[in-house]
Amino acid sequence: MRILIDTFGADAGANPIIEGTIKALEKRDFTPVFVGNDREIKLLVRDRIKNYEIIPTNEFISNNEDPVRAIRKKKEASIVLAYNKLKEEGYDGLISAGSTGALLAGGLFIAGRIPGIKRACLAASIPSINDNITLLMDTGANMDCKPEFLYEFALMGKVFLENAMHISNPKIGLLNVGVEEHKGNALTKETYKLLKESDMNFTGNLEARDLFTGKVNVIVADGFDGNIAIKTTEGVLKTLGSELKNLIYSSTKNKLAGAMLKNDIKSLAGKFSPDEVGGAPLLGVKSYVYKAHGNTNETAFSNAILGLLNYIDMNVIEKIEGELHDN
Amino acid sequence: MRILIDTFGADAGANPIIEGTIKALEKRDFTPVFVGNDREIKLLVRDRIKNYEIIPTNEFISNNEDPVRAIRKKKEASIVLAYNKLKEEGYDGLISAGSTGALLAGGLFIAGRIPGIKRACLAASIPSINDNITLLMDTGANMDCKPEFLYEFALMGKVFLENAMHISNPKIGLLNVGVEEHKGNALTKETYKLLKESDMNFTGNLEARDLFTGKVNVIVADGFDGNIAIKTTEGVLKTLGSELKNLIYSSTKNKLAGAMLKNDIKSLAGKFSPDEVGGAPLLGVKSYVYKAHGNTNETAFSNAILGLLNYIDMNVIEKIEGELHDN
Repeated sequence: MRILIDTFGADAGANPIIEGTIKALEKRDFTPVFVGNDREIKLLVRDRIKNYEIIPTNEFISNNEDPVRAIRKKKEASIVLAYNKLKEEGYDGLISAGSTGALLAGGLFIAGRIPGIKRACLAASIPSINDNITLLMDTGANMDCKPEFLYEFALMGKVFLENAMHISNPKIGLLNVGVEEHKGNALTKETYKLLKESDMNFTGNLEARDLFTGKVNVIVADGFDGNIAIKTTEGVLKTLGSELKNLIYSSTKNKLAGAMLKNDIKSLAGKFSPDEVGGAPLLGVKSYVYKAHGNTNETAFSNAILGLLNYIDMNVIEKIEGELHDN
Repeated sequence: MRILIDTFGADAGANPIIEGTIKALEKRDFTPVFVGNDREIKLLVRDRIKNYEIIPTNEFISNNEDPVRAIRKKKEASIVLAYNKLKEEGYDGLISAGSTGALLAGGLFIAGRIPGIKRACLAASIPSINDNITLLMDTGANMDCKPEFLYEFALMGKVFLENAMHISNPKIGLLNVGVEEHKGNALTKETYKLLKESDMNFTGNLEARDLFTGKVNVIVADGFDGNIAIKTTEGVLKTLGSELKNLIYSSTKNKLAGAMLKNDIKSLAGKFSPDEVGGAPLLGVKSYVYKAHGNTNETAFSNAILGLLNYIDMNVIEKIEGELHDN
């Protein structure tokens, strides 16, 4: 398999991208096709990879740019070159740690949507206390969703989990302000009906306080609301983290206790860290595309590549198409 | 002043209500008018209050009932009797720890909205790391908001903070998925324009990760989104709390360290606890109404009563009316 790897866009530069690729190659065979600065890539690889290719460019799309505009204008940007290459025969998948917006825009405007699918979205994994797999879909790509979009997210999440994660009949929950059927806004009330009538394993509404309890496998949400949930979590963790730090440095006794707990608290924090999963598939587009986290490291990027390879192996896109056909 | 006090609806029963009232009377003079079980109230008061009245009833509205229906049908429910009494001469305010939905429904259908105001909402206080006062409006009463509603929330929050909390020119932020003006859904984009054109101190969009950083004094949100933010916070805190507990009980060393940090962690948790503030005013209705937390205790309920008295003293409703008139 040949995998297009965007070397631009990670917070720590190309280094974790190359190291993560080498780490992934220890576990699985594939041909990396790096897109980025030719010289830098060769320097970082240092002959440690037998077969690899480079698509050279120095242009990239940053997080601060309007992604749709940038995808259309910056013809030499790494992500644009990668998406164009992906349409050719012999390229199997694409992974990038760069701008999520650019990845999405490229997915829609270069790769194209799966026929019958109205919106693409990242199947973002979130942690759960019982280590159940939980996807939150969407987390910010699609604003002002219609009930059909949320229905599609549920369907794509289900097919992905069944095939790539071997979870049979995954539980689907709808993010809402209360568990009762009549609760919510116009969008969730209509979506509730669609999901209830479907043959998916819909378990009803899920309150935001149950995001991390692992009660369901797919939490369906409008991109605005999913984003509020994710960023609220980020904010609470950051606030608590800094308060805990202050608390520990506030006295000699606390410093001692803090030192005793340090490693365990670190591993608890790790559980809530995005590095564990490494990335998320962009579901709804016609090609196999994976988003690695911007703050990726060697391990996280390696995990993300392995996730992408598995996603390709399991023919998830073909299975989504099949599922659409059957309905 | 005569204050109507609903003795039904608190998780711990009438006891914290009566004790909280006695505690508040140590600081401020007012006449409590308890609404609830006559015998129980007398038993709990035990002659410790000189002047008080009782409106006897055994009916109440629970959290599980459809509030609008219940307000209309249950003529003898404590909250219905209290709202009806509030319309008479000589009653100055109402406080309840019971069903939020019933309090809101009573506000709309018995007390009535302030002319010119389209929606009522609770001005919920949320904690901030720098101890700045932050209100989140709305947190769940109003689904499918229009931009004008959010504008009203901002205006009412501003007038409340200026008058009851003596914050001059409070900062207003709009809960959104990004800080840039063009970010968000149709609702936030339109609301942004309204707030930008207003003479309020609008500081722009606020991401959910900044909910607790005290950057603004009023965070304006649709009730659905505010609810997601509040309940996500609740969920993260609960999850972390239980994981931290497991961690501390996992070894003798950790148990020792945990014992050393116990009091400080408790006070940190207290900072995020709703008890600190005690309650929130129901802004937008024609009468002075305060919601105390369902899980209220003596201190929290006393603080809530003192908050209500201050809210009445400062003539906030008249000032909201004045502000509407000027615009």
